[in-house]
Amino acid sequence: MRMRARRFSSTFRSVTLVLVVAYCAIPAIGQADPLPSWNEGAVKRSIIEFVRKVTKSGGPDFVPVEQRVATFDNDGTLWAEKPLPNEVFFVVARVRELAANDPTLKDKQPFKAILEGDAGYFQAQDEKALFSALTVTHTGMTQEQFAIEARKFMATAMHPTLKRPIKTVAYEPMLELIAYLRANNFDIWLSSGGTIDFMRAFSQQLYGIAPDHIVGTEFKRESRSIHGVLSVYRLPELEHLNDREGKPVGIDRHIGMRPLFVGGNVYSGGDIAMMQYSEGRSGPSFQLLINHDDAAREFAYQEKDNFSLSSAQTYGFTVVSMKSDWKTVFPKAN
Amino acid sequence: MRMRARRFSSTFRSVTLVLVVAYCAIPAIGQADPLPSWNEGAVKRSIIEFVRKVTKSGGPDFVPVEQRVATFDNDGTLWAEKPLPNEVFFVVARVRELAANDPTLKDKQPFKAILEGDAGYFQAQDEKALFSALTVTHTGMTQEQFAIEARKFMATAMHPTLKRPIKTVAYEPMLELIAYLRANNFDIWLSSGGTIDFMRAFSQQLYGIAPDHIVGTEFKRESRSIHGVLSVYRLPELEHLNDREGKPVGIDRHIGMRPLFVGGNVYSGGDIAMMQYSEGRSGPSFQLLINHDDAAREFAYQEKDNFSLSSAQTYGFTVVSMKSDWKTVFPKAN
Repeated sequence: MRMRARRFSSTFRSVTLVLVVAYCAIPAIGQADPLPSWNEGAVKRSIIEFVRKVTKSGGPDFVPVEQRVATFDNDGTLWAEKPLPNEVFFVVARVRELAANDPTLKDKQPFKAILEGDAGYFQAQDEKALFSALTVTHTGMTQEQFAIEARKFMATAMHPTLKRPIKTVAYEPMLELIAYLRANNFDIWLSSGGTIDFMRAFSQQLYGIAPDHIVGTEFKRESRSIHGVLSVYRLPELEHLNDREGKPVGIDRHIGMRPLFVGGNVYSGGDIAMMQYSEGRSGPSFQLLINHDDAAREFAYQEKDNFSLSSAQTYGFTVVSMKSDWKTVFPKAN
Repeated sequence: MRMRARRFSSTFRSVTLVLVVAYCAIPAIGQADPLPSWNEGAVKRSIIEFVRKVTKSGGPDFVPVEQRVATFDNDGTLWAEKPLPNEVFFVVARVRELAANDPTLKDKQPFKAILEGDAGYFQAQDEKALFSALTVTHTGMTQEQFAIEARKFMATAMHPTLKRPIKTVAYEPMLELIAYLRANNFDIWLSSGGTIDFMRAFSQQLYGIAPDHIVGTEFKRESRSIHGVLSVYRLPELEHLNDREGKPVGIDRHIGMRPLFVGGNVYSGGDIAMMQYSEGRSGPSFQLLINHDDAAREFAYQEKDNFSLSSAQTYGFTVVSMKSDWKTVFPKAN
């Protein structure tokens, strides 16, 4: 009996040990690294600490689910924007297509410069030259026709210097961040300078972001009957430029709320107003500014006036060094 | 034994009967009337048949969840719009408030007419008079300030003729319809001629519709630093009129998709373009047009040119008679 009691006791202890280990493992599983592509450090720690405090029920910084709005710039924040934003490659592809049907375009600027790859022409002109190309390629058709063109481009387009499909130039650490925020019931939006309808052609596939969750630059549109079907037709006039001070206005129009979390990047100072707008909410908020300092794995570029980085210092935004904070940049599998 | 066998058999039959009855009751429970405030008839039947066919997995008319977008006009479709749209009562309340601080308003038109309840003045003027009052009461402040004013009004305002709080003049059958569509994974939006920010002040409470699911008339806004906080400031200029042909444009901007289900009403023909736009989607769609023919329980009003009803006939929209199709109009509990 004593022997059996011992065995029983031994079995009991083994079982208990297994249960205790299993129990301890539960929080470990629950707290598995949500951002494996981010190096350990102050930036990663501050993101995780922020998410924990705003989701801690009953905590002093708790934010209800309906206010957990996150807005991300796209070009240079979620995917590469060098040597040129990917929407410019779409403009080029469209001009080539149009020129095949209308050979006179070859002799007209700015199409001539685009067809000949004459970057110098655009550097010498003001923004009107690029805008003229954008208008010709983006308007004068229904929304459905434009969506077909944009999806066709995205299906096969290759990035000229990264040598991978454009639909795979999104940053792995940012895809992880989106998934992490979404797992914590954040509502994820794009708020970018790109046109809203170009982004609508790929945002679901790339980021899991639906067409109604995109704030972008917009052309005027009107209702028009096309072959007896009432359609929305794209007009050659800019309606909203979703950059700099335009971003808070676009966010207000589409979301109606100051964002709790904002992601942007250093390039043209385009995301600072959106970050200040977020910081103006009553209660906690987080602003993440990506610094492109990684010439080896992506691109290195700064602003002439250092506006974004100095604003980050002034307002307390969190600066991400791509070089130091990111373990990987692009997803491995193409 | 024979006796026991009989008893067993009798018990068996009783139990079986109970089980069969219980089993038969399951679909009855599952198919409990989703629209109890709607009278039985062709309209109610066609709504339920439409929802069943577009949600029937594997069926020929199945529509995936991400395309189940429903847009509803607000004034006259979800809540009463007579004798005047409720937003006009808000304008009146705001003018009274402004006049208390600035007595000179009493001598200026159109404020004089509003303060004196002189409806004739507005009937004699063109739309500019009303628009002038709208601009003064709706702009020249931040979005946060406007939200405070609108919420304050909605909290206590009484409807002048229905003699109940304005926040209770929503139609019971339409609240049921929204709940029914939502239970079938439809995404519910407002698309109304009222201003977007006025609707944002009550849509969550009245309809469970979040601020980012509202398409409405919009004033211009700009980013402006107010006491050191970057805010969105309301400017005295109309940017988008969300009525008639403006509705498809607003829906395209905010949703980026033709709606599967549209609700509107007879009054000014304002919802017909949105219905035609919905009907233009490839695959099934449903358009519900409410006819205000119930002077006893609500209001009876028609269009001079009968545009909405004749359009409904031309395009095959479903016309709701408030008088015949609705068992109740307003919720009982105030």
